[in-house]
Amino acid sequence: MIDYSAFLSTAARLGQGSAIRKMGQLAAGRSDLISFAPGYPDPAVFAWDEFREITARLLDGSDGTALQYGPTRGIKPLLEGLTTILAERGISAKMDELLVTTGSQQGLDLVGRVLIDPGDVVLVELPAYTGAIAAFKNAQARLVGVRQEPDGIDIGHLEEVLARERGGGNRVRFLYVVPNFQNPAGLLTSQEKRRQLLEWASRRDMLIVEDDPYGDLYFGDSAGPADTKPIKACDSEGRVVYLSSFSKTLAPGLRVAWMAGPEPVVAKFEQAKQAMDLMSGALDQRIVYEAWKRGVLASRLPMLRGHYRHKRTVMESTIRRELGDLITWPEPRGGFFLWASLPECLDADEMLPRAAEKNVIYVAGSAFLVDGTGHNRLRLSFSLPPAERIEKGVVRLALVIRDELARKGATAGISASAS
Amino acid sequence: MIDYSAFLSTAARLGQGSAIRKMGQLAAGRSDLISFAPGYPDPAVFAWDEFREITARLLDGSDGTALQYGPTRGIKPLLEGLTTILAERGISAKMDELLVTTGSQQGLDLVGRVLIDPGDVVLVELPAYTGAIAAFKNAQARLVGVRQEPDGIDIGHLEEVLARERGGGNRVRFLYVVPNFQNPAGLLTSQEKRRQLLEWASRRDMLIVEDDPYGDLYFGDSAGPADTKPIKACDSEGRVVYLSSFSKTLAPGLRVAWMAGPEPVVAKFEQAKQAMDLMSGALDQRIVYEAWKRGVLASRLPMLRGHYRHKRTVMESTIRRELGDLITWPEPRGGFFLWASLPECLDADEMLPRAAEKNVIYVAGSAFLVDGTGHNRLRLSFSLPPAERIEKGVVRLALVIRDELARKGATAGISASAS
Repeated sequence: MIDYSAFLSTAARLGQGSAIRKMGQLAAGRSDLISFAPGYPDPAVFAWDEFREITARLLDGSDGTALQYGPTRGIKPLLEGLTTILAERGISAKMDELLVTTGSQQGLDLVGRVLIDPGDVVLVELPAYTGAIAAFKNAQARLVGVRQEPDGIDIGHLEEVLARERGGGNRVRFLYVVPNFQNPAGLLTSQEKRRQLLEWASRRDMLIVEDDPYGDLYFGDSAGPADTKPIKACDSEGRVVYLSSFSKTLAPGLRVAWMAGPEPVVAKFEQAKQAMDLMSGALDQRIVYEAWKRGVLASRLPMLRGHYRHKRTVMESTIRRELGDLITWPEPRGGFFLWASLPECLDADEMLPRAAEKNVIYVAGSAFLVDGTGHNRLRLSFSLPPAERIEKGVVRLALVIRDELARKGATAGISASAS
Repeated sequence: MIDYSAFLSTAARLGQGSAIRKMGQLAAGRSDLISFAPGYPDPAVFAWDEFREITARLLDGSDGTALQYGPTRGIKPLLEGLTTILAERGISAKMDELLVTTGSQQGLDLVGRVLIDPGDVVLVELPAYTGAIAAFKNAQARLVGVRQEPDGIDIGHLEEVLARERGGGNRVRFLYVVPNFQNPAGLLTSQEKRRQLLEWASRRDMLIVEDDPYGDLYFGDSAGPADTKPIKACDSEGRVVYLSSFSKTLAPGLRVAWMAGPEPVVAKFEQAKQAMDLMSGALDQRIVYEAWKRGVLASRLPMLRGHYRHKRTVMESTIRRELGDLITWPEPRGGFFLWASLPECLDADEMLPRAAEKNVIYVAGSAFLVDGTGHNRLRLSFSLPPAERIEKGVVRLALVIRDELARKGATAGISASAS
């Protein structure tokens, strides 16, 4: 038997799998499982009819490029469309500042490749999106966490962390943030704080990587378009690399997302992408472009916002009914996620197999926290299950939590954490 | 103005763009251009009707997974289908030895990430596929070339190069080969030599990365299925990582290819892919799977072989008619490429802008040769243009070459090289 470890690169030996993707294994074979784990959009609200009609037209054979190799940068009509989409978000971007990516995960991977050397420090939120953590760790970055306040990252702590890291002789590469309905915490960064972040980047000569998959999915009741304006919209110096995606609003099975950034950096992203997958899918890009051009995306957004808002409301009200003050969370004002704090004495990782036995799963919070904290946190995605399944799943979860508390016999811990 | 070079990783600063992709720029705005540059399949022989029918069914809304996130490893029916496809090529692979990739380029990138540390040596053919060169260079490998003979790599030179590199204290990671209708040289490695390569890998404790996009496209008149049996088919020790693709036989716009290798290595590929793009396109994978299951692929292969063989024949006979013995090449017995040697006094890079002026382009051979040779070589792809355009393009190219010779006034050089 060959010992393959001798053939592996350092990156491969150190690499870590995604905690969320491992959930799939817990789920396997459980037909009645209710999963709050993955941040999947709901296929019940995909534009099936429009996609079918668009695709029939694209595959009529009149245009060979629909299934051919194409430019690494992305197909031209889509790039042009993106300049309009970005303009609607207040971002002025030229064609050579844009790159179509094979999902935003590729964008994060490109950021890792082009902006990180092994050992470099990357600043991330506490908690932060696991896919970004994985991509930056694969580039052998050292991730350092910055605390969040209800209105976004704690600027004081950010300054403190940066000073400490630079003082220690470390090269700090960029700050990664998800200002709109953050994954996993659901937080919305205030516009004032976004200005402060830009000002900080300028003062400290830093770049900001802004990931915005959820900005279009504000819930209206507590957040609107004025609240979700990207940091990039005010980026006069060219310090922001902006990522966004069609995965949450059209469909993730079409692997189409994009990046906007300073032209010299985007040129490097394009060059790296050439060697990574040559191009994003030609058919996928055309379907997305046509859906945008025909107004499918714009016309459906109000319905999508209402759809996910309703699920959020069902999840919140069921948690309140079933668990009272036992768990707490910041109200999701958009997006897909509810970030819950269990009583301090509970451990979400430890509890997960028992939850799976009761046919309900979530992602334990520790996966999102690069500082080793978060044992009593969990991320609940309300985006995929139908409302009645959300209610049923929360009822199951409440039983699991109460069992767990009984098991711990930890009355003191409960009252301390619920206070 | 910010100096972004200070923010770039070492890999990004060192990274190189693809020579073939740059051809696109030479081609821009020339409506009558005949391009022998990119190795594109011919959309005239894509299965448009079948794709349209399959996609209409997939998008009927009855199965949400058609546009949803899915497993990084690939969708299960496709993985099962791949075990059958591989069995037909003599390769026995279990599900956990397989990974679906976003085109074979992603497979090459994964090889770079998982098997290469900066400074490692990778052995490649002289000449070698530029996409592999780019992927391995992006992983900061040092590429060392091994000569080819008409029946594949020169084993004596391979031993010599390996001994020299190991003797110099360098870590040699693997040998990369394209045994079937190699890109760019069009060579077919003999079965005897494939056995010798496996024996060499075992004796020297090496891995082989075998890239096989063209194996199904043998031309019948001079090569058949017995000649294209992959190295991997006889790999009893687990020393071969095998890559193949649907891009040349179904369509490259659907980004679906795959890898087969030893389970522990494929597990690392999967883990790296998680952080790279989460998954390959869900719709693309399903279209490819359905096309395979319905027999679309198998039933069309004889036609495809005949189609590309005819184009090869037109290109060869036109070159002979127009240029006589002025240029030479090994006969393409399958695949998409003719690898031509110009008279020694000519430089294919230098000649390229003048060819573009005459509305014909190719890829200059130097891009494929990691040892700095190949100034008088060029790769001509006969796969995309219709037969009459191939003929017309070769006529133009012949004029360019004769002009170039006249410009050099190099009669002595001609007779030397044509002898």
